[in-house]
Amino acid sequence: VVIPPGDDMGGVIVGGQLVLITVDQLADGVHFDSALTPLELIGRKAITRNLSDVAAMAAKPVGAVCAGCLPRGFGEANANRLFDVMREVAERYGCPLIGGDISVWDQRLILTVTVIAEPAGIEPVLRGGAKPGDVICVTGRLGGSWTAPAESGGGPHMEFEPRVSLARKLAGMVKLHSMMDISDGLAMDLPRICEASKVGAEIEVASLPLRPQAHTAAKLSGKPAWVHGVGDGEDYELLFTVSQADAVKLPGEIDGVPVTRIGRVTGGGGVMLIHEGGRREAMGPGGWEHHE
Amino acid sequence: VVIPPGDDMGGVIVGGQLVLITVDQLADGVHFDSALTPLELIGRKAITRNLSDVAAMAAKPVGAVCAGCLPRGFGEANANRLFDVMREVAERYGCPLIGGDISVWDQRLILTVTVIAEPAGIEPVLRGGAKPGDVICVTGRLGGSWTAPAESGGGPHMEFEPRVSLARKLAGMVKLHSMMDISDGLAMDLPRICEASKVGAEIEVASLPLRPQAHTAAKLSGKPAWVHGVGDGEDYELLFTVSQADAVKLPGEIDGVPVTRIGRVTGGGGVMLIHEGGRREAMGPGGWEHHE
Repeated sequence: VVIPPGDDMGGVIVGGQLVLITVDQLADGVHFDSALTPLELIGRKAITRNLSDVAAMAAKPVGAVCAGCLPRGFGEANANRLFDVMREVAERYGCPLIGGDISVWDQRLILTVTVIAEPAGIEPVLRGGAKPGDVICVTGRLGGSWTAPAESGGGPHMEFEPRVSLARKLAGMVKLHSMMDISDGLAMDLPRICEASKVGAEIEVASLPLRPQAHTAAKLSGKPAWVHGVGDGEDYELLFTVSQADAVKLPGEIDGVPVTRIGRVTGGGGVMLIHEGGRREAMGPGGWEHHE
Repeated sequence: VVIPPGDDMGGVIVGGQLVLITVDQLADGVHFDSALTPLELIGRKAITRNLSDVAAMAAKPVGAVCAGCLPRGFGEANANRLFDVMREVAERYGCPLIGGDISVWDQRLILTVTVIAEPAGIEPVLRGGAKPGDVICVTGRLGGSWTAPAESGGGPHMEFEPRVSLARKLAGMVKLHSMMDISDGLAMDLPRICEASKVGAEIEVASLPLRPQAHTAAKLSGKPAWVHGVGDGEDYELLFTVSQADAVKLPGEIDGVPVTRIGRVTGGGGVMLIHEGGRREAMGPGGWEHHE
């Protein structure tokens, strides 16, 4: 085992070649609501959630297998639609579905996808490489991923774009010291980079790139929008650190996706939020817990 | 994709190296009954079911990832016991658990395990290589895999030994033309080899090696024991074909596991059962459907 559990993908050597592997499940009532969400979005997310882990390592997807437990009465037409979407989305990312296992049961729909990937010329970027003085960056925008017209069953948490090619472009521009994808929210995920790297971090609250939905969520909750930016989770954006010298080489956006400096790595002291005017506070967990 | 869906494992090339992958899920109420079955057997089967697919290709396991959806209230102690068993069983077969994904929901327990494997010097044995004239063989004994004292929750379908090392020993002795593991029962699985190989088959009913449990099942059902041997499923034994010249090289048992000639491959005509006295009948599906 070359990359043990705890990173976005595990890694083993197969015939002298590093092979990366990740698994994610998507369960009705936990990760989506089948009463609201179109099958097309469910199938899409089953694949893209895994591809976001591949992006987090700057790796290249190679293939996927899918296991599904379908509720009795789900119907063959629905099953075909679901698997067609998964196949199509996976192939769009060069990741053919090469096997599966389907059962029928009297419980709710659950899909489990495993993706294998290869470095393909780019050393996998782990969580443990952040260095004091590094600049912390994110791709895209954060927050409010669950805030969508309720009747749509969609929103960013279902329709995000996994940053597979973006991650590899970043790796070609700069030396990525550490990287992961934001699935549980910056407030829960940044401490994971800090723990793996034995460093601390400071986040400039005013610099956080927020989704329009984070502001919508703020209106609904009465909390500041940045709280949604760090706490909502399911952003599926890249969180990474680079040296200060490299940070200046980064463009403000790549292929239309913003790349934003949000803070810096420190020698220790946990994760601190720096508010406008300089007020400092420790970033609480406040991370996302699965909605139901 | 080098080995497309339809075999026991899919195969893709990663950096010039063939990597095999398989996924299987184990769902409460479908593949086991959590009210009866000890966690140790559930964890064991989650791993061994996949390893049986690895054996079916004569491949060598490299690593595994596991996704689990735990029922609310399952408890941390139970979760730890379950994953400890999986880790321990997997490592016994040289197949470290290198990642996972755990959720909690208000439905029943489901575990999904993905295993990757490598050829490691033995060309993967597919289903499509059977040739007319081949001898059909099985390892171990068949039938009655669900027949156990009901209160034990166990029996062969939970406690079988995946034939990983046995398959590789067989591959070292003879040229395996085709192979798979018997999961749905000989009556459903042998036709899969025939279809993939575009051949037919004849099975000598009297030659079928039956488990003691097949006879127990026969007493309970009033059907002949061989019906349980071909129809019960979840045997997780190897079904393979070799040339007649190679068949004579096979010992009657390897490491205490019987290796039995049960019939021959024909040019076509479906799968026929040859009864004692010469009566012929087409083998119906009669394959195993998931118990509940």
